[in-house]
Amino acid sequence: MPKSPEFPRTQRIGILVFKNFEPLDVWGFVEAFAIARFIATGYESPPPYPFEIVLISNEEKLAGSTAQPAPIASFHGPRVAPDIFRDDALKQPFDLLMIPGGQGVELLLGADEKAVKVLITWVKEMDKRVSLMTSVCTGAAILAKSGLLDGHPAATNHAAFGWVASFGPRVLWDNVSRWVDAGRYVTSAGVSAGTDMAFYLVSRLAGRAVAETAALGAEYDWHRDPSQPIFYPQQAVVPSKPVS
Amino acid sequence: MPKSPEFPRTQRIGILVFKNFEPLDVWGFVEAFAIARFIATGYESPPPYPFEIVLISNEEKLAGSTAQPAPIASFHGPRVAPDIFRDDALKQPFDLLMIPGGQGVELLLGADEKAVKVLITWVKEMDKRVSLMTSVCTGAAILAKSGLLDGHPAATNHAAFGWVASFGPRVLWDNVSRWVDAGRYVTSAGVSAGTDMAFYLVSRLAGRAVAETAALGAEYDWHRDPSQPIFYPQQAVVPSKPVS
Repeated sequence: MPKSPEFPRTQRIGILVFKNFEPLDVWGFVEAFAIARFIATGYESPPPYPFEIVLISNEEKLAGSTAQPAPIASFHGPRVAPDIFRDDALKQPFDLLMIPGGQGVELLLGADEKAVKVLITWVKEMDKRVSLMTSVCTGAAILAKSGLLDGHPAATNHAAFGWVASFGPRVLWDNVSRWVDAGRYVTSAGVSAGTDMAFYLVSRLAGRAVAETAALGAEYDWHRDPSQPIFYPQQAVVPSKPVS
Repeated sequence: MPKSPEFPRTQRIGILVFKNFEPLDVWGFVEAFAIARFIATGYESPPPYPFEIVLISNEEKLAGSTAQPAPIASFHGPRVAPDIFRDDALKQPFDLLMIPGGQGVELLLGADEKAVKVLITWVKEMDKRVSLMTSVCTGAAILAKSGLLDGHPAATNHAAFGWVASFGPRVLWDNVSRWVDAGRYVTSAGVSAGTDMAFYLVSRLAGRAVAETAALGAEYDWHRDPSQPIFYPQQAVVPSKPVS
């Protein structure tokens, strides 16, 4: 393996967390970037590291508050401690935003009109700031609702496909691939497909050698070919008309 | 698929978390039990659920304190919010304890003698209370140091094999399998091997149908055969003498 490259700066990976997120959607993604950082720079190396991973709380920060974001519970209990509030993420540099899926997406998009508008506005603002917008699982529903995926191919959880697709009638939904790289927008199918996509994103951002060594370090059976479905239809379906 | 069974009671799954735990060691395990709970009982079902997942902080609770456990940082940043202190876990019922791996294990076992003794005493106390003691990755070093694996076959992270094995010269270390079920002690190889073991433990505790449907729901390519190595030697090595 070639010597690890020097990383000119740390790329900041933001992950949105909200009540009832799906655990592996977030943490499979975290693992890929975390172990890549270790592989690329070792335990005790000084910065710059290739990546910094930041958990962004979906909770709104109360005006003037200096409180830290409260813990956020994943679906079925175990909680994360987010690093920053959603609003503060707009004041910091990020290179990539990831929106996970889970039962919480239904709560977010089923909220009152004002709350949905605030979320969608935030997503669009982040889109102007980052180089890569990504989603895992039903997180694609939020990107679709924001209109960002219009005209682009995209993947989402197979078991919730019709529900997610209803938020983006102009999206070129792909019900076969494990993930879809549409350049600026990269979306994965359900849950563990996001881990495969994350190692792919590591290869885009830190090189294939780092991604391969990271997957080996995690003893992870990385599915490198996104066009190969593992469980679901081998045959893509073109809707006869846009999903309404 | 047969109808999901009724679960007579909720089995409590405890997971120890400590500074610099490896992210996927914990959350791949969480995902298997979390999605199994959903698969078995649905979104809105009333209890009893098959599983409750509890993150146990390795921090000591100060005498008389009513404070909640502080967030614990995984290796490279993202934090969890534990549910209870280690000491309080001894006062609650648990069915299974899982000890993850990661760089933090070196810190735990490299601490001063008193701190190591307190941890090992706690592990042995938990061993008396649960039906299953499990580890992922280098977490096996803590079970080995406690003497619990003596005379039993066990797996651990392949990249750290020699280091972990040094804590248990009487353990029947297995450097081929992805995980090893020794009845009461079930241990996995590195990082993502723990997710495969977790779906297996779901099948032991909630039945194969629940585990299979949960893996499908997570679009997870479950490696069901623990005897099949994915990356590492196809040939087991018997040390010529115990590792000292």
